[in-house]
Amino acid sequence: MGHADQRGIAPARAGAIQALSARELRDRIARGELKAAEVAEAFLHSIASRDDEVRAFVWHDAAFVRHQAAELDRLRTFGRPLGRLHGVPVALKDIIDTARIPTCNGTAVDEGRVAETDAWIVARLKAEGAVLMGKTVTTELAYMHPGPTRNPANPDHTPGGSSSGSAAAVAAGMVPLAIGTQTGGSVIRPAAYCGVTGFKPTFGAIPRTGILRQSQSLDTVGVFARDVEDAALLAEVLFGHDPADPATRPGAPPRLSEIAATKVPVIPTFAFVRMPGYDAADPEMVAAMSELNALLGDQCFEAPLPAAYDDAAMLRERINFAEMAHAYHRYDRPDAPLAPVTRAALEAGRQVTARDYLAALDWQTVLRAGVDQILERCDAILCPAAPGPAPAGLSSTGSSIFNGLWTYLGLPTVTLPLLEASNGLPMGVQLVGRRHDDARLLRTARWLTEHLTQGGDCND
Amino acid sequence: MGHADQRGIAPARAGAIQALSARELRDRIARGELKAAEVAEAFLHSIASRDDEVRAFVWHDAAFVRHQAAELDRLRTFGRPLGRLHGVPVALKDIIDTARIPTCNGTAVDEGRVAETDAWIVARLKAEGAVLMGKTVTTELAYMHPGPTRNPANPDHTPGGSSSGSAAAVAAGMVPLAIGTQTGGSVIRPAAYCGVTGFKPTFGAIPRTGILRQSQSLDTVGVFARDVEDAALLAEVLFGHDPADPATRPGAPPRLSEIAATKVPVIPTFAFVRMPGYDAADPEMVAAMSELNALLGDQCFEAPLPAAYDDAAMLRERINFAEMAHAYHRYDRPDAPLAPVTRAALEAGRQVTARDYLAALDWQTVLRAGVDQILERCDAILCPAAPGPAPAGLSSTGSSIFNGLWTYLGLPTVTLPLLEASNGLPMGVQLVGRRHDDARLLRTARWLTEHLTQGGDCND
Repeated sequence: MGHADQRGIAPARAGAIQALSARELRDRIARGELKAAEVAEAFLHSIASRDDEVRAFVWHDAAFVRHQAAELDRLRTFGRPLGRLHGVPVALKDIIDTARIPTCNGTAVDEGRVAETDAWIVARLKAEGAVLMGKTVTTELAYMHPGPTRNPANPDHTPGGSSSGSAAAVAAGMVPLAIGTQTGGSVIRPAAYCGVTGFKPTFGAIPRTGILRQSQSLDTVGVFARDVEDAALLAEVLFGHDPADPATRPGAPPRLSEIAATKVPVIPTFAFVRMPGYDAADPEMVAAMSELNALLGDQCFEAPLPAAYDDAAMLRERINFAEMAHAYHRYDRPDAPLAPVTRAALEAGRQVTARDYLAALDWQTVLRAGVDQILERCDAILCPAAPGPAPAGLSSTGSSIFNGLWTYLGLPTVTLPLLEASNGLPMGVQLVGRRHDDARLLRTARWLTEHLTQGGDCND
Repeated sequence: MGHADQRGIAPARAGAIQALSARELRDRIARGELKAAEVAEAFLHSIASRDDEVRAFVWHDAAFVRHQAAELDRLRTFGRPLGRLHGVPVALKDIIDTARIPTCNGTAVDEGRVAETDAWIVARLKAEGAVLMGKTVTTELAYMHPGPTRNPANPDHTPGGSSSGSAAAVAAGMVPLAIGTQTGGSVIRPAAYCGVTGFKPTFGAIPRTGILRQSQSLDTVGVFARDVEDAALLAEVLFGHDPADPATRPGAPPRLSEIAATKVPVIPTFAFVRMPGYDAADPEMVAAMSELNALLGDQCFEAPLPAAYDDAAMLRERINFAEMAHAYHRYDRPDAPLAPVTRAALEAGRQVTARDYLAALDWQTVLRAGVDQILERCDAILCPAAPGPAPAGLSSTGSSIFNGLWTYLGLPTVTLPLLEASNGLPMGVQLVGRRHDDARLLRTARWLTEHLTQGGDCND
């Protein structure tokens, strides 16, 4: 371990640890080959070197991290059964309540706010032995007004939003795992822009109790990781039932990790969907998707969406705005320091009638039925995660045009960092699966990754 | 059997059969002591003698009834296991879809409408061997504009609404069991006015698929019977989970019949609640409730409701109107023959904003928590089922002032025909229980009935 000590670690050693997958970190800590404290130091080292530029964290305290890791190492010596994330660092979007450390929701209104209790998922993370690395930058109230985070792949470009900091923290190697939320495209888009794997599970799979509520019918907790199996590991820990969140249901949680890692029984089939707005996408993205379709050959067919789907973005937005106007009532004051874009959404939300709102909810069922018919004929729908690579500038978080439909319909989606634009920035391929069939979606995503990165000849 | 034949029955024999409880009818048919055909004739006889005056049925066909009964008798001879309602007549409010026979929703707009498929509860009734006696009068679209039904206890008085025909049909002895729905007070009020037992279970206990949707957050299926145990029998058959109705949940259905019939473990305690509007109730009702409280002595304490509950009626109405404006969109046309009271509700519903609507839904949780605290200290809340006996005249269905709060909060309630006004009309005592503890509420209701009708010395 060279000259690593409690307050430092050799850069080479730090790099070697950072390069390990979350599963590998977990396994080595469990076997006693690594200490949680060492792992924490490796990622603290990374935060110290990178975060001045990237600005992924809004709250971070090395002493707090070291304290958790030391405690976990102490517990391990007792020989007790370890949690499923024992010693693995995780970062949390700053709209997720954490007892005793601040949760500021990306707004000065909540500056210095400390929640009384942990969010459901934070309690779960602690029970499973995760090391909380800090709170990551969110856009203002998880809507569109950007925070200070930069894209680790190029600091002049946006990391996407609203889960900007979580995506950037994973992309910059500052944590192996992070958590965000998606109401429109706030997990998939930043993951694609930053070049990591993003996974937004089926609506209601992960309890939202203790997380800033923007839109109760849309808000979905999602995860960021460096590969599909790591995303499965974190999501599996977070899936559950909480009677306080009516979107969740009782039942056995799926074995995401195990299934994501298994061989596919037959080579998967994909339905390529040219979503509304596809014609206006970046030509580089369109060309890359065509190439991908060609590569998949017979395993990919094109499934057209009827004209009714042109309204989906408007219907999703109507629900989002109406529920936001309700949920953000306490922020919606003339003297509150809110960005114009947030204010405009609240203003629009106040105008929505209950009848129009209820109609938009009813349309979910209709439009979901159409997509379900496509999903019956394939393993996953294939489409871009965003119109192109991360746009230049930090004044916008980019477009969620290819994400909102799936959020509206509550379908699980994953983005894979499989494409690259000519400027070197990553582009994401999005896969969409059946509701509650998250495990199979992840398995299909793992297969596609291996198929494309290992030369197209693998079938497991 | 005297001169009873397939097309008729001696009045005395009909009277003897009508006097049996639904459980007794079911048991005697199961034992072969009665035929379903005979039971059907007895109630057909009653309909023929009474319904010209009462006008409980909007659709009724003796041949259809006889056909079902004959088929059930034929099945019985095969020695197969019989359904839980084999041969027992049941009447259905005319907003409950029935394949091949009309469902007109109390409006000329739907005159001659025949639904393609049975409602979930109708399919369940058929599977359990019930004999469908016909469709009963509802107010217009199950809202406030009255139908032609008269109160069997005095034809110059309203039977209440909106489940007017179902309550009157049971009260007049035309069926032993009937089904209605409650969005404000549409089961409890007509049951109280007509002098029968009415039971509105916990919100979501009975699937509503195939029943006219007025207000998805409030609509609740309920039952009418001549005593608590019969109500338990019918409700037990109807409780269930239907994925198409998001208000229902999977899980083992409660054994309502068995528990309603058991001895209470300890003598129940009641919380008397002076609801908003109590001071304006009929002095006869106020006096009767005082007498009842005195009779219960130490078993009854008064539980005050804080001022926040004064808003509950307005909040419930806001949800009702907003959801009605959405659900009744197809009726809401200038040329539709709608009553002014219905039109006014739709007009009000169109004005409700999504934000106010969502706030009214949020308040359910808050106000429920307060009532739950009362319910932790007693077996049931005690209050009037209506401000007094059925008002004179048929132009109004009376007031649901003492029902809306419990519907809004989704709590199970039962009304018992234990009181009588000086004009001879029945008055109802309402008991309210914990959510999902319907079985105990019914057991408490049975105890109270026996306690009051058997001289106050029983404790089982």
